[in-house]
Order: sequence, then structure tokens, then C-alpha cells
Amino acid sequence: MALDKVILREKLDRMDRAWTPKIVGELNGQQVKLAKLEGEFLWHQHEDEDELFLVISGKLRLELREGSVILEPGEFYIVPKATEHRPVALPEAEVMLLEPAGTVNTGELRNERTVEDPEHI
Amino acid sequence: MALDKVILREKLDRMDRAWTPKIVGELNGQQVKLAKLEGEFLWHQHEDEDELFLVISGKLRLELREGSVILEPGEFYIVPKATEHRPVALPEAEVMLLEPAGTVNTGELRNERTVEDPEHI
Repeated sequence: MALDKVILREKLDRMDRAWTPKIVGELNGQQVKLAKLEGEFLWHQHEDEDELFLVISGKLRLELREGSVILEPGEFYIVPKATEHRPVALPEAEVMLLEPAGTVNTGELRNERTVEDPEHI
Repeated sequence: MALDKVILREKLDRMDRAWTPKIVGELNGQQVKLAKLEGEFLWHQHEDEDELFLVISGKLRLELREGSVILEPGEFYIVPKATEHRPVALPEAEVMLLEPAGTVNTGELRNERTVEDPEHI
């Protein structure tokens, strides 16, 4: 029997809205998410959750208060919990995220960019 | 200040031995590992740990007792905990693994292929 795998490109091609993460996998209480990013997001933090950003395509600058890092495809950075950060796509990026199940994209904030219950695709 | 990122290619280029995972990141009690695979590994299982295999280069067949899946670059599969599996590289693959800290590559087995304490690179 052929088991179902996740093809990142196929999942990303089904996504259109920027800053709207989708869940593509779960393991050990963590979720694997994909997101398309355009331009600036907002400063936020996740009180108890470390968050990994792996760039699949495009370019992403992760700004922290202490400095920043530019990620290109095949590069990742882990933002430690309780650390303010702002993702800025230059000008677009596709990313794979890894974070605990239930992590909200805007962290401690709730506003029009909050995705409370990301869709599984 | 420029923050340190992980460049998967740069890390992989520092690795030579097959079936010898290295740790390249930690978050939420999980570890991100890289490994070079050649040919067949052995059947094993991880009693309490789900394990994600994301192929970076090459081709990998993951065999489970119920079926198998072939992964190419940009594709992943999550082997559920307590599930016997055997990775087979066709004939080589580079993979990113995600699993709980302390997960041993040969699962419940201990033999000459066991890497008890993977190096951080």
C-alpha cells in the first residue's frame, strides 16, 4: 500500500492568502504549518512556544529586538519563546513553521491578522 | 546584530558518515537533526516518539509493515510512534529529521548502528 506523504509544493500551490498558516502535519504535540508571507507582519511574541521558520522559497527577514537574520531557501531560525519578533518577507516568502499545537500566529495579540483555528490541508 | 541561522546545505557539507545523525536545532523539547543515508537501514520502532522525515536531496523509501512511501526533495512523512519502519535510501538521501530530544536512531534496538549521543553541529 502506498502511504500518504506531504508534498510541500503541492500544499503551497493550494494556498493563496498571505499570513494565513495551514496545518500540514502533527507530531509529538507539535504542528507543521505552511504559510505564504508578503511584506511586514507585526511585532509579537509567543509566551511559551519556540517557533521554527524554514524558508522554502523567497526571502524572509526575522527581526528580533536584539538583531535580525535574513533567511533564504533551505535556511532556518528558531525564535525562542517569550521573544518579540517580526517576520518581514522581502517581498514574498513561503515558509514551513514548526511550533506547538495551538500556537496562534499573532502570539499574545488578537487582531484582524489573527488566525484562531488554522485549517488542515 | 546578525543572528545565527542554520543553513542546511552548509551543515550537510560538514557531514560524511551515513546513518550518523547530527543535531542542528532544538525547540519545545524536540530536536532537528540532519542525516545522510545510504542504502538500507534496519527495521526498528520508537515506542513513544513520532518521527518526521523531510527529504533534502536524493530519494528515500520509508517502509512500514502496512505499506511504503517514496520521498523526494521537499516531501515529508511522519512515522507514528510505536510503528515499525525501515528507511531505505535509493541509493542515497539527505534528510532533515524532527523528533523528541533523546530519540535514538535505532529505536528500541542497540547495535553497531546505534548513535547514543548525536553531536551538535
